[in-house]
Amino acid sequence: MLSRPIYDSDVHQFRDTVVRFLQNEAVPYHDQWEKDGQVSRELWEKGAELGLLCPSLPEEYGGAGVDFRYSAVVMEEVSRLGLSGIGFFLHSDIVAPYIHHYGTEEQKQKYLPKMARGEMITAIAMTEPGAGSDLQGIRTSAIWDGEHYVLNGSKTFITNGQMADLVIVVAKTDPKEGAKGTSLFLVEADWPGFDKGRNLDKVGMKAQDTSELFFQDVKVPRENLLGSAEGQGFMQLMQELPQERLLVGLVALAACEGAFEWTLDYVKERKAFGKPVIGFQNTRFKLAELKADITAGRTFVDRCLEMHLEGKLDVPTAAMLKQWSTDLQCRVMDECLQLFGGYGYMTEYPIARAWADARVQRIYAGTNEIMKEIVARSL
Amino acid sequence: MLSRPIYDSDVHQFRDTVVRFLQNEAVPYHDQWEKDGQVSRELWEKGAELGLLCPSLPEEYGGAGVDFRYSAVVMEEVSRLGLSGIGFFLHSDIVAPYIHHYGTEEQKQKYLPKMARGEMITAIAMTEPGAGSDLQGIRTSAIWDGEHYVLNGSKTFITNGQMADLVIVVAKTDPKEGAKGTSLFLVEADWPGFDKGRNLDKVGMKAQDTSELFFQDVKVPRENLLGSAEGQGFMQLMQELPQERLLVGLVALAACEGAFEWTLDYVKERKAFGKPVIGFQNTRFKLAELKADITAGRTFVDRCLEMHLEGKLDVPTAAMLKQWSTDLQCRVMDECLQLFGGYGYMTEYPIARAWADARVQRIYAGTNEIMKEIVARSL
Amino acid sequence: MLSRPIYDSDVHQFRDTVVRFLQNEAVPYHDQWEKDGQVSRELWEKGAELGLLCPSLPEEYGGAGVDFRYSAVVMEEVSRLGLSGIGFFLHSDIVAPYIHHYGTEEQKQKYLPKMARGEMITAIAMTEPGAGSDLQGIRTSAIWDGEHYVLNGSKTFITNGQMADLVIVVAKTDPKEGAKGTSLFLVEADWPGFDKGRNLDKVGMKAQDTSELFFQDVKVPRENLLGSAEGQGFMQLMQELPQERLLVGLVALAACEGAFEWTLDYVKERKAFGKPVIGFQNTRFKLAELKADITAGRTFVDRCLEMHLEGKLDVPTAAMLKQWSTDLQCRVMDECLQLFGGYGYMTEYPIARAWADARVQRIYAGTNEIMKEIVARSL
Amino acid sequence: MLSRPIYDSDVHQFRDTVVRFLQNEAVPYHDQWEKDGQVSRELWEKGAELGLLCPSLPEEYGGAGVDFRYSAVVMEEVSRLGLSGIGFFLHSDIVAPYIHHYGTEEQKQKYLPKMARGEMITAIAMTEPGAGSDLQGIRTSAIWDGEHYVLNGSKTFITNGQMADLVIVVAKTDPKEGAKGTSLFLVEADWPGFDKGRNLDKVGMKAQDTSELFFQDVKVPRENLLGSAEGQGFMQLMQELPQERLLVGLVALAACEGAFEWTLDYVKERKAFGKPVIGFQNTRFKLAELKADITAGRTFVDRCLEMHLEGKLDVPTAAMLKQWSTDLQCRVMDECLQLFGGYGYMTEYPIARAWADARVQRIYAGTNEIMKEIVARSL
Repeated sequence: MLSRPIYDSDVHQFRDTVVRFLQNEAVPYHDQWEKDGQVSRELWEKGAELGLLCPSLPEEYGGAGVDFRYSAVVMEEVSRLGLSGIGFFLHSDIVAPYIHHYGTEEQKQKYLPKMARGEMITAIAMTEPGAGSDLQGIRTSAIWDGEHYVLNGSKTFITNGQMADLVIVVAKTDPKEGAKGTSLFLVEADWPGFDKGRNLDKVGMKAQDTSELFFQDVKVPRENLLGSAEGQGFMQLMQELPQERLLVGLVALAACEGAFEWTLDYVKERKAFGKPVIGFQNTRFKLAELKADITAGRTFVDRCLEMHLEGKLDVPTAAMLKQWSTDLQCRVMDECLQLFGGYGYMTEYPIARAWADARVQRIYAGTNEIMKEIVARSL
Repeated sequence: MLSRPIYDSDVHQFRDTVVRFLQNEAVPYHDQWEKDGQVSRELWEKGAELGLLCPSLPEEYGGAGVDFRYSAVVMEEVSRLGLSGIGFFLHSDIVAPYIHHYGTEEQKQKYLPKMARGEMITAIAMTEPGAGSDLQGIRTSAIWDGEHYVLNGSKTFITNGQMADLVIVVAKTDPKEGAKGTSLFLVEADWPGFDKGRNLDKVGMKAQDTSELFFQDVKVPRENLLGSAEGQGFMQLMQELPQERLLVGLVALAACEGAFEWTLDYVKERKAFGKPVIGFQNTRFKLAELKADITAGRTFVDRCLEMHLEGKLDVPTAAMLKQWSTDLQCRVMDECLQLFGGYGYMTEYPIARAWADARVQRIYAGTNEIMKEIVARSL
Repeated sequence: MLSRPIYDSDVHQFRDTVVRFLQNEAVPYHDQWEKDGQVSRELWEKGAELGLLCPSLPEEYGGAGVDFRYSAVVMEEVSRLGLSGIGFFLHSDIVAPYIHHYGTEEQKQKYLPKMARGEMITAIAMTEPGAGSDLQGIRTSAIWDGEHYVLNGSKTFITNGQMADLVIVVAKTDPKEGAKGTSLFLVEADWPGFDKGRNLDKVGMKAQDTSELFFQDVKVPRENLLGSAEGQGFMQLMQELPQERLLVGLVALAACEGAFEWTLDYVKERKAFGKPVIGFQNTRFKLAELKADITAGRTFVDRCLEMHLEGKLDVPTAAMLKQWSTDLQCRVMDECLQLFGGYGYMTEYPIARAWADARVQRIYAGTNEIMKEIVARSL
Repeated sequence: MLSRPIYDSDVHQFRDTVVRFLQNEAVPYHDQWEKDGQVSRELWEKGAELGLLCPSLPEEYGGAGVDFRYSAVVMEEVSRLGLSGIGFFLHSDIVAPYIHHYGTEEQKQKYLPKMARGEMITAIAMTEPGAGSDLQGIRTSAIWDGEHYVLNGSKTFITNGQMADLVIVVAKTDPKEGAKGTSLFLVEADWPGFDKGRNLDKVGMKAQDTSELFFQDVKVPRENLLGSAEGQGFMQLMQELPQERLLVGLVALAACEGAFEWTLDYVKERKAFGKPVIGFQNTRFKLAELKADITAGRTFVDRCLEMHLEGKLDVPTAAMLKQWSTDLQCRVMDECLQLFGGYGYMTEYPIARAWADARVQRIYAGTNEIMKEIVARSL
């Protein structure tokens, strides 16, 4: 009922393209992808053809040179349709910006156009089995041996892990230092010593190839140190986090809106005790409460998006958005599932999957507890 | 951390004036007013001098001809300071618009300038002892006897009830009809048969003179039928409700922001077990959660305000805002109070009063249950 | 910290047996069963050997003639270990009592001993695709054709559906009547016209063979009408429901206690930011809150169990327990999962499965909304 | 619907006496006492005549030698009727046990009989303006000058503060020590240097004379050191806390039950939109949820009471009860108030006062945050 002034007609047209693409190329296959534990490479290539990958990169690197709203639209529609296996945003809006913002010209030339064309799928490897959200505590090391950086360590929970051709790896170039000893590396998947571990079996996000990655004496050439100077990694990570968290918020709200629509349709059609489920005051009040929550959330995320487009979205505000919107998302999914009764628990109903998919949003991209810590520090 | 682009520098200047006025003319006296059960008439007159009453009325009727943001600012600052006794908004932004939008030219000339000057304090009497939020079920009647309308009935929970010189009374001109038989009357306080009942003793809002009103054979001249045509009352009420509910939302958010600031100051200063209360993770997380909630709420209310300025705030969206923001307000007050420990329960601490004041917001202006019903109907 | 006086040393010994059995015969295989969508028949047979099936049946029908506490213990330990695929309680404590309480002597002799020996696995078929929790609205019919009841209809969400050799089917013998036209039938799985549909793919409870069942002109002999008189079905269902709902409550609390222990162990061992996760006040407070909730729940369910043993557990109290304890269970699982961070989302961690398993508890055995309706009617 | 087996017919009879007494001697006067800020001394004396003060003291000290259930009953009925001004439990079940358990024979003889007769009203002074729930951080000192202990310091939030004739004061006999330097003193109200400060104005509990107390060079004779040995204070406090917290839980549950009954009566009688308020599903579901919550709470508190009678209620369990039951109480009051609509906010309705009264329960007797800390430590 509140319009979204942030989007103009050009964006609306792009959104139509995205929806059509997803309806044709993803919706019919997602069930199979859930069984496979990953989406198809074909999807990436077809998406690239339509300009859905890396739209905000400059044209010289294969992008469309448009602003972040176009990325937002892709993820909104992926999320609204419950296509949780599609890891475009990690690739386009997290990995690509690292290379674009911090990479050397050579790095940009080498990797970005392939990424935009969908020939190279990417991931970023931060989390380690023993460290969780604690980036300063990572143990993966990349030690200069005079000729190469020698990379050793293991990572886990890596989105796009199985499919990735290129992985940005967070490692300590100086293990004695904390933040200051941290650097990012561009590591190609076929280099000796880089082994992909299990495609982890998760309670949701079944078509996402979230994986373990292992590095044993991987020789990384100097030119694959992101940005050519050591010790910049932590600062680079910090600067990109608001955009990542905004994306999580955009995903959360679109998921809420999608689930709300499914539920509204269902309760209007489904009968119980001789009348449509929407005829019960409990249903009506639950939906009214959710509608208000989602409307509040929509204004929150759109205001953050507006600030981000102006370059003014600060770290604590993005952290609040991430925490708040993902808490909302889980609450919405839970209430909506309940309104489906037994069907809500059946995987064939999108709400069941959306409920399970949602749960990880409060955990990754920094747990919501970390978000609160970030906000508290800013007070 | 999110700016509020809706306010420009003119408004900021006006806000400073309002704050200064309240700090000087209201803060030092509010304790006494809470004991008295009402604020002073002097406050109204002084407020009028500074243009705080009815700012959005055209200059010809004594207003400043400015937009609704100026009214919003007055209520935001009244609320932020916890000055819950000050019923300006009922007068300026609910009663005045009825007369301005629906009144005859004669009615406008007669009443509006006095209202803007604070010479005439006003109220609106909808609720009846037996009917609550059910406007169609009211029993107060105004029957035309050939010369006058003869008004009989009783009203309750009337804000500004003791102080009011003029009351808009909702009555049935045709008791056999529901909505269609409803009309509004401009009733002056000194007319025979109009008795003011008790100044009701409430659990909060102590300086608000919320009252019962009784009408026994009050003779109301025809020219005091608002707008001169019978049966328009329900429609008139419906059209003004979004603004009333937006005001409740503005009051709620400003109260939240005020209470959050008091609490933040307190937990930074106060020590427990040898360290400042803000040093405890529980405190930090509670505050972070509240900050996120309030930030979301701020974007919600400001977006509604924006829509309202464009004349596009619809009834269900205003209802969502009213429900959502007042639920938030009570939650914020409750959590903040707890962080004050025992002091949070002492009336001398503003948080204690703000907690008790907040509770009525979920009830009046249509209970939050009514709000959900309105939203549900729109789905 | 509160002892459970309801259990004496005999029960404790039985509990030890149960735990040993489950640790040896179920825990190592449950992963495989989750892939298979059902547990093994061998498990049922081995369980029967130890007396875990139908313990409260009299010895003449193959039981041990003990009280309901022994059944409670089996389900508590199944639940505490997260072995959600094991549908013993449906068989022992729901199906068997129907036959035992309402069956003819011939029916008891024919079926109960086989059930106690695990040779015959059973299910009960109430829910239909179009009717959900509305038992009066069922459409499956069993019409007497002079020689047989001819059973037609379809059922869904049937626990033990694939494995069942015998199913109690709720059908209308008089479709024009509501409750009064409802009867229960003992239907064997290999009778012509009885088709088992899909083993439904659920978001949790993966080793449970929850299924669709179809009946097309199934000829049911008169002697398989439960209890020999038509039209008793609804009353029979109503009388058994408190025990079913108590069982759901027992399952819920044991699941909570199990998950709490896993989580406590995890947060004591796991480190984040250089200290054990339990060292963070947020962790401590969450655990303390859960502990209090679970302790309250434990006293609630044990008091209901006590009342049930005395034959005094009424329908509304059992409904309250079902609703309250399953809401608690979902909340506990959600909070515990979060404390595991990313691991909480990995299926290999029991908490992940327990979280997904729990969700159906608020839906089946009468949705929690139905429970509230039942309670409200009793006020 | 669940019976309370802990009470037998003797207790029931006593309960009837208590209820009659309160209906006659307290209910008609409580409004006035709220205005006065304290109850009448007459109430104490009349209560004493009926044996409502200190029932569990041995007969030799003026009690009835009965068990704690009799005290429980007094407080349950006081609370159920919303008579929050009556501070008997502080006197009978907190102060008296200190003297009875730790006092010298001389101290017992001197004070207990007068307490049981209601001639001497008592209080306990722990909290200080700067220390809150942190007992080890108190600054009030009692220094031995060779002849007397010289008591200096100030206390706040002292229940029965204005009326108290005798106050147990927690003070440091060795300010350099923490817990070990803490002692308790029996201080009479008319001793020089003991000044009673303000009767604090609270947001609820209006008839409770919660006060500040000041001690300036008060000479305390050695025989008024509780128990005659210095440094026992902290240990004494720790041992009495479970009973205090159990009492808070008993008060909480009785308050919930009382408020639930008022609300049920109201929603059955009150009409809205042409039908009784209980006819709305929202009302029905809210009441059903509260009923389940309260039933769970009732089993929890009664089980704790049972354990306490056996001398087995441990500190963490009592802490859980205090936190859990008072959180429940505030939730119940909040939901019930809302069901009263505007009347719920009017002080003349008991629910309004009960709502405001309840709020302090989460704060005093150790804040609920302290309770969580205690529970967490025990895990």
